[in-house]
Amino acid sequence: MPGGPLERRATRALTGLTLRSAIGLIVGVATVLSVSAAILVRLIDPAIGTMGDALWWAVSTVSTVGYGDVVPESTGGRLVGTALMLTGLSLIPVITSVVVSILVSQRSREAREAEMRDLEQILARLDDIEQRIGS
Amino acid sequence: MPGGPLERRATRALTGLTLRSAIGLIVGVATVLSVSAAILVRLIDPAIGTMGDALWWAVSTVSTVGYGDVVPESTGGRLVGTALMLTGLSLIPVITSVVVSILVSQRSREAREAEMRDLEQILARLDDIEQRIGS
Amino acid sequence: MPGGPLERRATRALTGLTLRSAIGLIVGVATVLSVSAAILVRLIDPAIGTMGDALWWAVSTVSTVGYGDVVPESTGGRLVGTALMLTGLSLIPVITSVVVSILVSQRSREAREAEMRDLEQILARLDDIEQRIGS
Amino acid sequence: MPGGPLERRATRALTGLTLRSAIGLIVGVATVLSVSAAILVRLIDPAIGTMGDALWWAVSTVSTVGYGDVVPESTGGRLVGTALMLTGLSLIPVITSVVVSILVSQRSREAREAEMRDLEQILARLDDIEQRIGS
Repeated sequence: MPGGPLERRATRALTGLTLRSAIGLIVGVATVLSVSAAILVRLIDPAIGTMGDALWWAVSTVSTVGYGDVVPESTGGRLVGTALMLTGLSLIPVITSVVVSILVSQRSREAREAEMRDLEQILARLDDIEQRIGS
Repeated sequence: MPGGPLERRATRALTGLTLRSAIGLIVGVATVLSVSAAILVRLIDPAIGTMGDALWWAVSTVSTVGYGDVVPESTGGRLVGTALMLTGLSLIPVITSVVVSILVSQRSREAREAEMRDLEQILARLDDIEQRIGS
Repeated sequence: MPGGPLERRATRALTGLTLRSAIGLIVGVATVLSVSAAILVRLIDPAIGTMGDALWWAVSTVSTVGYGDVVPESTGGRLVGTALMLTGLSLIPVITSVVVSILVSQRSREAREAEMRDLEQILARLDDIEQRIGS
Repeated sequence: MPGGPLERRATRALTGLTLRSAIGLIVGVATVLSVSAAILVRLIDPAIGTMGDALWWAVSTVSTVGYGDVVPESTGGRLVGTALMLTGLSLIPVITSVVVSILVSQRSREAREAEMRDLEQILARLDDIEQRIGS
């Protein structure tokens, strides 16, 4: 009902594009957050000895994996960790929400266009009827 | 199709507002849950020595990171942990669901308004036709 | 546009109901999965010494927290763990999807009813016009 | 309003089908990612001694559980882990988004079909009116 094979192929292409940019966005935001938190925690926390350890801790935190092999021990380092965890926690629902609302509106637009075409046709016919009655 | 540049800008502003309050809600709920669980586990569990440790454990639990460097060992502390984990697990889908449904209805309202305008116009024209026929 | 204060209050009540049953569903499914996996792993894995440890491991696994303080070490126990992790991983998107689709259809039904009322009215008027022309 | 018991039963069946294939997709993608990362990390990282350990680490990583009992220690192994974590992080929102948009469009199609039937009827009646006026 909501469109021929061409329209369906277009929707699928747009969906693929949206999903690919969603993955890009997630990976990008996670990387920026991880690098920033790693630099901060490396400066603040003496328990994290190398930049490699700091990055490894930050990535495993923002992805909510949390191995626990590298962990900040000072209050300052734990505050950085808390900020990173809460941001990581928000990342998933926020990006999911945006992607879903884009996908849903793409799919419904297709169907809506069929309705709009019908409505335009009805208006054109009423125009025609009015002119015939008026004359 | 679903609206000019002005309408699109308004939707984008509303989306930004919704996402910002979603992040605020997630961070707020996670903080309240963490502080409550930290106070409880500090009172109940002897394995968690300081309030700082209790808070660190609670935040890493509610965010599902779970380092495992601070962990309750008594049955009472583990029951608090279980409650916190199950709440943390529910937090994400619930907030995602609310945000998505708000975003989707914002986007579809825009398009729907175009349809409603067409329907109102059809009704007005039918009024007009009825009057002309009636006379 | 999509309805008066009464309709909006009804939608809000239904949303609350849906969210509460979603949380109930998540907690219920997580509990059933945890208890089943705990019983299995307790029987299979010698590294997990008490039923309390088995339950604590299972809950922290299904919620994807994963402290790592209690962990199966045999191949059998790890297979139970793998099944539990993959189920836990699926739990969130599946329940989110169902809740979102229910919420979205609740909100759009409200707006759709206004459209349906207009369409019914148009059909009734066309009936009327046809009868007047016919006579 | 959006359909009789038969249509509702059809929607429920389709929803069940969609959810089952979503779980299948999540489990399938997670398995493929885990096996690939396990093979890579086993080749690269000396800290991961057996293929069993490598698989156990990969599954607990892609599901964001992250026990931390088996963890890569070399830079190469950590890079494999980082790639796996970021992919695991993207897996949930992407699959949730696709499933939600399918479910939402299934539910709205049902209601939309009622609208389309009304619109078709309006167009047919206008045809009829035009012919009567024309003659």
